[in-house]
Amino acid sequence: MPLLPSDLISFLKTARSAVLEGGGETNCSCSPGQSGKLWGGRFVGAVDPIMEKFNASIAYDRHLWEVDVQGSKAYSRGLEKAGLLTKAEMDQILHGLDKVAEEWAQGTFKLSPNDEDIHTANERRLKELIGETAGKLHTGRSRNDQVVTDLRLWMRQTCSTLSGLLWELIRTMVDRAEAERDVLFPGYTHLQRAQPIRWSHWILSHAVALTRDSERLLEVRKRINVLPLGSGAIAGNPLSVDRELLRAELNFGAITLNSMDATSERDFVAEFLFWASLCMTHLSRMAEDLILYCTKEFSFVQLSDAYSTGSSLMPQKKNPDSLELIRSKAGRVFGRCAGLLMTLKGLPSTYNKDLQEDKEAVFEVSDTMSAVLQVATGVISTLQIHRENMGQALSPDMLATDLAYYLVRKGMPFRQAHEASGKAVFMAETKGVALNELSLQELQTISPLFSGDVSCVWDYGHSVEQYGALGGTARSSVDWQIRQVRALLQTQQA
Amino acid sequence: MPLLPSDLISFLKTARSAVLEGGGETNCSCSPGQSGKLWGGRFVGAVDPIMEKFNASIAYDRHLWEVDVQGSKAYSRGLEKAGLLTKAEMDQILHGLDKVAEEWAQGTFKLSPNDEDIHTANERRLKELIGETAGKLHTGRSRNDQVVTDLRLWMRQTCSTLSGLLWELIRTMVDRAEAERDVLFPGYTHLQRAQPIRWSHWILSHAVALTRDSERLLEVRKRINVLPLGSGAIAGNPLSVDRELLRAELNFGAITLNSMDATSERDFVAEFLFWASLCMTHLSRMAEDLILYCTKEFSFVQLSDAYSTGSSLMPQKKNPDSLELIRSKAGRVFGRCAGLLMTLKGLPSTYNKDLQEDKEAVFEVSDTMSAVLQVATGVISTLQIHRENMGQALSPDMLATDLAYYLVRKGMPFRQAHEASGKAVFMAETKGVALNELSLQELQTISPLFSGDVSCVWDYGHSVEQYGALGGTARSSVDWQIRQVRALLQTQQA
Amino acid sequence: MPLLPSDLISFLKTARSAVLEGGGETNCSCSPGQSGKLWGGRFVGAVDPIMEKFNASIAYDRHLWEVDVQGSKAYSRGLEKAGLLTKAEMDQILHGLDKVAEEWAQGTFKLSPNDEDIHTANERRLKELIGETAGKLHTGRSRNDQVVTDLRLWMRQTCSTLSGLLWELIRTMVDRAEAERDVLFPGYTHLQRAQPIRWSHWILSHAVALTRDSERLLEVRKRINVLPLGSGAIAGNPLSVDRELLRAELNFGAITLNSMDATSERDFVAEFLFWASLCMTHLSRMAEDLILYCTKEFSFVQLSDAYSTGSSLMPQKKNPDSLELIRSKAGRVFGRCAGLLMTLKGLPSTYNKDLQEDKEAVFEVSDTMSAVLQVATGVISTLQIHRENMGQALSPDMLATDLAYYLVRKGMPFRQAHEASGKAVFMAETKGVALNELSLQELQTISPLFSGDVSCVWDYGHSVEQYGALGGTARSSVDWQIRQVRALLQTQQA
Amino acid sequence: MPLLPSDLISFLKTARSAVLEGGGETNCSCSPGQSGKLWGGRFVGAVDPIMEKFNASIAYDRHLWEVDVQGSKAYSRGLEKAGLLTKAEMDQILHGLDKVAEEWAQGTFKLSPNDEDIHTANERRLKELIGETAGKLHTGRSRNDQVVTDLRLWMRQTCSTLSGLLWELIRTMVDRAEAERDVLFPGYTHLQRAQPIRWSHWILSHAVALTRDSERLLEVRKRINVLPLGSGAIAGNPLSVDRELLRAELNFGAITLNSMDATSERDFVAEFLFWASLCMTHLSRMAEDLILYCTKEFSFVQLSDAYSTGSSLMPQKKNPDSLELIRSKAGRVFGRCAGLLMTLKGLPSTYNKDLQEDKEAVFEVSDTMSAVLQVATGVISTLQIHRENMGQALSPDMLATDLAYYLVRKGMPFRQAHEASGKAVFMAETKGVALNELSLQELQTISPLFSGDVSCVWDYGHSVEQYGALGGTARSSVDWQIRQVRALLQTQQA
Repeated sequence: MPLLPSDLISFLKTARSAVLEGGGETNCSCSPGQSGKLWGGRFVGAVDPIMEKFNASIAYDRHLWEVDVQGSKAYSRGLEKAGLLTKAEMDQILHGLDKVAEEWAQGTFKLSPNDEDIHTANERRLKELIGETAGKLHTGRSRNDQVVTDLRLWMRQTCSTLSGLLWELIRTMVDRAEAERDVLFPGYTHLQRAQPIRWSHWILSHAVALTRDSERLLEVRKRINVLPLGSGAIAGNPLSVDRELLRAELNFGAITLNSMDATSERDFVAEFLFWASLCMTHLSRMAEDLILYCTKEFSFVQLSDAYSTGSSLMPQKKNPDSLELIRSKAGRVFGRCAGLLMTLKGLPSTYNKDLQEDKEAVFEVSDTMSAVLQVATGVISTLQIHRENMGQALSPDMLATDLAYYLVRKGMPFRQAHEASGKAVFMAETKGVALNELSLQELQTISPLFSGDVSCVWDYGHSVEQYGALGGTARSSVDWQIRQVRALLQTQQA
Repeated sequence: MPLLPSDLISFLKTARSAVLEGGGETNCSCSPGQSGKLWGGRFVGAVDPIMEKFNASIAYDRHLWEVDVQGSKAYSRGLEKAGLLTKAEMDQILHGLDKVAEEWAQGTFKLSPNDEDIHTANERRLKELIGETAGKLHTGRSRNDQVVTDLRLWMRQTCSTLSGLLWELIRTMVDRAEAERDVLFPGYTHLQRAQPIRWSHWILSHAVALTRDSERLLEVRKRINVLPLGSGAIAGNPLSVDRELLRAELNFGAITLNSMDATSERDFVAEFLFWASLCMTHLSRMAEDLILYCTKEFSFVQLSDAYSTGSSLMPQKKNPDSLELIRSKAGRVFGRCAGLLMTLKGLPSTYNKDLQEDKEAVFEVSDTMSAVLQVATGVISTLQIHRENMGQALSPDMLATDLAYYLVRKGMPFRQAHEASGKAVFMAETKGVALNELSLQELQTISPLFSGDVSCVWDYGHSVEQYGALGGTARSSVDWQIRQVRALLQTQQA
Repeated sequence: MPLLPSDLISFLKTARSAVLEGGGETNCSCSPGQSGKLWGGRFVGAVDPIMEKFNASIAYDRHLWEVDVQGSKAYSRGLEKAGLLTKAEMDQILHGLDKVAEEWAQGTFKLSPNDEDIHTANERRLKELIGETAGKLHTGRSRNDQVVTDLRLWMRQTCSTLSGLLWELIRTMVDRAEAERDVLFPGYTHLQRAQPIRWSHWILSHAVALTRDSERLLEVRKRINVLPLGSGAIAGNPLSVDRELLRAELNFGAITLNSMDATSERDFVAEFLFWASLCMTHLSRMAEDLILYCTKEFSFVQLSDAYSTGSSLMPQKKNPDSLELIRSKAGRVFGRCAGLLMTLKGLPSTYNKDLQEDKEAVFEVSDTMSAVLQVATGVISTLQIHRENMGQALSPDMLATDLAYYLVRKGMPFRQAHEASGKAVFMAETKGVALNELSLQELQTISPLFSGDVSCVWDYGHSVEQYGALGGTARSSVDWQIRQVRALLQTQQA
Repeated sequence: MPLLPSDLISFLKTARSAVLEGGGETNCSCSPGQSGKLWGGRFVGAVDPIMEKFNASIAYDRHLWEVDVQGSKAYSRGLEKAGLLTKAEMDQILHGLDKVAEEWAQGTFKLSPNDEDIHTANERRLKELIGETAGKLHTGRSRNDQVVTDLRLWMRQTCSTLSGLLWELIRTMVDRAEAERDVLFPGYTHLQRAQPIRWSHWILSHAVALTRDSERLLEVRKRINVLPLGSGAIAGNPLSVDRELLRAELNFGAITLNSMDATSERDFVAEFLFWASLCMTHLSRMAEDLILYCTKEFSFVQLSDAYSTGSSLMPQKKNPDSLELIRSKAGRVFGRCAGLLMTLKGLPSTYNKDLQEDKEAVFEVSDTMSAVLQVATGVISTLQIHRENMGQALSPDMLATDLAYYLVRKGMPFRQAHEASGKAVFMAETKGVALNELSLQELQTISPLFSGDVSCVWDYGHSVEQYGALGGTARSSVDWQIRQVRALLQTQQA
């Protein structure tokens, strides 16, 4: 983003012609043939087309057309209040900007070859539409504060959209958790079968992680929602523009404190990219679980045809492409975050052209998140579960810990109880029977505390109901979780 | 962190001996010579010392000794309330834990070769001190919820410490900004001289960036400050432990919602590492500015001897090592953030040993941030500025924009004014004079709006005072910024 | 990339219809309404358009059209040799593929909505052009080995192009170094003036770094240049296709060793992205130097108008955009490398859809590198240097080290000589004179070894000529460097 | 690494005292109380202990003691040849350095508080041992070229060690592949069962990936093995030291070309870190496979007790910690690579203190790689496989592709054959029988080409033998792979 003075350039070209025509000499002693080729290299004339393309941002910042118009409309109101535009001029500009927006919306806006970015394009078009008054719009404004205002407006909207999609995903998960809360299946740690849990407990473990993403997104949005307009290129605005009025016009939550910082900090971009990276990490873990559960070996779930490349006709080869893509996008999104941070590292303060890297990262990550969240919602809402397989995967050895707790409840210290349970496991293994097939007599050789009621231990339903402390897998706790997450969603939407 | 059942292992070893002694045969058909070497490779016996070292975390997680004791004390209170410990047993445990802590504090705690982590070490020692009652402490607890509770307690304290250091840095910067607010020097964009600004405006641009880090750190701390204890290994706590009591005992702000998520999510670690990365990015940019200002070519500032490797005896070679180190640490800190996210990517849910990577990252980054913030404070508080050099670096061409505004104030549309200013710049260059050396007559050939009062434009002090909109470089705005930052610090400390 | 059997899918859809029409019942007990909405979420029918778009790669893999045709032509030759195609069938396919290529080249190829990737599109079109024989082309081939063959072909060509551009840049730098080898200016360490060096020595320091990039690119290319075709989806090729023949047809240097590895390893992509990242790191450092040298404060060089956004009309504000963009792209390119590695981390072996992330990274990075290398060449070839400023920036204190060497040559141990030189520096500073203004008598109070010939020390030209060991800044050594780099380029191009 | 002149500092402190004692006045007008506290902040005296610790590298660069002595010994030989040391002086220095090394080796070397790095420490000790002659050792050398020489020597040795460990791992895998090459099990893509393959084919797929790491490590080592000594601080060596002699003394393969580049490029570090990152990515994928194969659901393999935290007594909970740690370290190692690249990005050329970040990264990554490679070798060499489970996991539907090839061999075009096979899969599913249970009559309703010999298709052993093209899973091809990898190892070790 060039500093204000560099906005002079195109005019200066005209100026040079004018002065020269007026009899001036080209006494450009320091740069004869300056743009010509000096040393090897391909020929370079006054203009290097590769450099022009390298420099231009219009290919992607055109996404900003709507917010650019929005920002300019607010700014023209600010100029009017500051006495720099008459009411009539303001109206003319506002009307012209509306026409510009209309052309974009209808797809009739025509870029000219010199439109290097969206700001230039829109102002150029405005001038064609309303004439010289257009030249007053940029008074006291710089592309430095303009572009960052546009980007914040755009991202604010994106955050709202993504919040909505994230809530939809969480809500779908919670609905499903509620409906299927009586399905039990194995809980794993280290991918080894650990303890019986409710299927809903698994769903909620991922939903709860996503609520943190939702909370963080609101925080990021809060910091996005700060107005930089009125910061000029570096020193601020010299024309007493009322930044509070601009803030109100554009519905920002606050104004930036320092013009140098305002035009060059990209914290809100880095934060957004990191937000997306962490959210994707969560989704990659959920995807990993589901990919495993989709294997022939686990066979706990089956993806809808809409989210796999295989077919219900060939059940042995239904590839969970949707989940693999979700998992993989964690890398892509993080890569953008890493790239931006590296670009920012060690950069001199205020605006440097390096900052132009921000927008493509934001656009790509926004698109990716939008698709991922919707696909994840689709996957979860259409997934089939195989309850029978889930049930059959439970085995008595997963209750070894409960066996120890049985003894603890009878008064044995925990470490001893664990030792006793271990002995039982070993005894069963030695005898080649399941843990629950040991006779009471056999158990009593390990501890006299075992009695007939030990048979209750072997009931999976009974097992999960023990875990009634808040956050556990008992039904009451699962219901509590559902209520908590629903309450969170409601609060955040408020 | 092994799941509860795996805590059985050492006891099972005893159990196996016991059963075998009882006449059992080693009928271990599936694993004859199981730990022996099968295929090439170096010899591997029952124990691979490299694996033991690879697996153990005691070398670094001993940092957690204090919070581990703290967590265990709270948990024993929870067990007592749940009726799993008598009051006397609880007191015995509390007393024993205090002795353990005392040994750590005094440096007399002796690790045994089997102490693979701090939790094992402390419980082993407790048992030595108070006997079998120690075996009741771990009832219903798992290393999975224990370690993450410890880490959160440790990080909560660290966040407070780092907040304090960050505030100290910001306060130092604001004090300095206030004291030196009448010093002017060039503002740069693209490292090219742009407009005159106040030196304090530059200081504040970095201080304001750091206030966002401060705000973010509070948000991260809020999410750290959530109690996972009572989540067990995966399914929750089966003994009706009152998690609200635990929360209150340990002064957490909330409790985790889902036991599977609670034991395996490391969002708070990732957030902390990213917080540090973004903060370091800010400091790297400030360091870059100061390294430039320290060069012979800029000569705006001079580092104190305490923060450079050179000497006041050899002014031509005083290396700004402190600033270079600050700049470089942005890479290191970000590397830890990147590493953790990659480790988390695609991990199956719940606890996996991969999560053990979290602690070294946290410890290293905390140490780095602590040193960086203190060194930065030292640098800023002892830096000398060369006012004269700063003043001499201002030149009339930096006022070209102000010249345009002069015309705008006389009624000329901005784009025309810019063009006129450009013509003046070109005219001065062509004539080989400074911009302010053009005569009124010469200026009037460009525009008849120029009159005698144009001379005011050439005053740098007058220039900066124009930028009076909030956030600008005028004195009133700088004062406003100082008040705003001070108010922020006060709010955050409340 | 679906496994071979999944290529069956579209045919299976037909098959299902056929069987059903034949009287079969839809007895799809496990999936009634399977693709319908089960739980919350937006409506999902049999097809989710967002998923389709998420899954499709045609938007970017169409870049591969030419190599896809090339690979298919070779494969049809392999099939003919294996007896799976007649000579006539092969000719028909070859001819058809040429037509497909022609349509792409002329921009007349029309994508159909079902063309999810370039391979599908080309085969679909081939079938339209030549009929059922097209159905024989894919015999024994899978999209898994097809796509990776295509990508390797494409990248092999890209590596050659980028090698050429890199050589052009190095050659331009060496030419310039040769032409300007008598220009002296300050060498900096820690950005503090250190010792006088030749300007060419600086140029060569960056050129030499780039020769390592050139060497590495050849190594990467060697590993790209390995044929995976004939690996099938996972198990290999079951039809005795002669892979050596395919290799020779496509001019690969070797064939892959293992079909599972061949279809799923993306080392060559990761290596390429890292190659680009390291090369960009070099260019970012060169850009940083030049951005500093472009500042008013250094004023050593001036960018051509073609590579800045400012203008020769406004010398005080000529922004080095080209250099800033080069510096910033180091972040972007590294981000792609980081993203891919994270995507690969922990992926189960063989093909997973996650690997689809490879291509966009490669395409974007290739484009970026191509632009960066050309712009850098343009910048270097058109840069103006300000010899006078360079000379004036040299100062006697930069010769303090040489003063110590003067004493070393007179027999004083180095550490003592350094101490003596330090005393001289301090004495000069104390007296407020330049180091070379100390009188002989004054110097002799420090050491009696000083005599009249000490005056030679103060000659910058004499200074640099001392550094004649290979790699130093003496003219002979600079010439040696130029010869070495030229020889390297010649070797690498051979 | 300070530039040579800054080595003067400690001497200058003495010098200052000397001069001042000689009657000089402290006329330090520019820095009264320069190191004192000016603005807020904690107190800062002449020395900030936090800065000292922040700056010092001795805590980790002491690892370099041996190579530092080695480099100094070679350099003293270079000085003797250049006539700057007499033979006697050289012998004295060599002898003294041997004593320094001895002290390190025996653990008797005592650091002094001023030993900020290993170079300072060794030279300080040398002087204590041999007196003033020690002051001649550093003649013409700088810490800038010294440290990078040391690091290259250290890394060269490390590369050899790691190469050996990597070869050992590959050799173990190949041995195992050879021994178990008749074991069949399912090959997966997208984690869905795809086609039957040999277990050895899976082992080799990972071994082949590691051979690329081995090849790359040799290339990295080649670029490490280049001598920078004789580059001084920036300008080169002014004393005609024969760098070819130094190269030969230290057994380097070549010398660096440019002194500025030589002292500040860290390509070889970045390359090494990336080498490790990519190698870890491979190992993370192998670990992921094995973690899955260890699950109850897959049950293909069983880890030795030495590499899991569970026990053979409790088979349901044997956690594959070794594999999880290997998988996780991919993140850590990559983090170091990312960190270094970010540190290097945009750094001004030549030595900056930022480069001090290189060593800890190298040391940590070297240690990690050493442990990971050894643990992986141990895991592979002691892993038990469950052949029966592997066999039972094969199912007829995995032969659907082979069924299509059956028809292709009978002359049917591939796409039609695929369609026919798909019909058979659907028919079997509809009838609720396995694919191989369809009668010949039933198959003939799909295609008349089916005849009695179709029964061969259902033999898994027959299936894999079809994949005889090089790289496939047929026994001949597996044997070929084993020979190829063994040949590669032999070549690389040569």
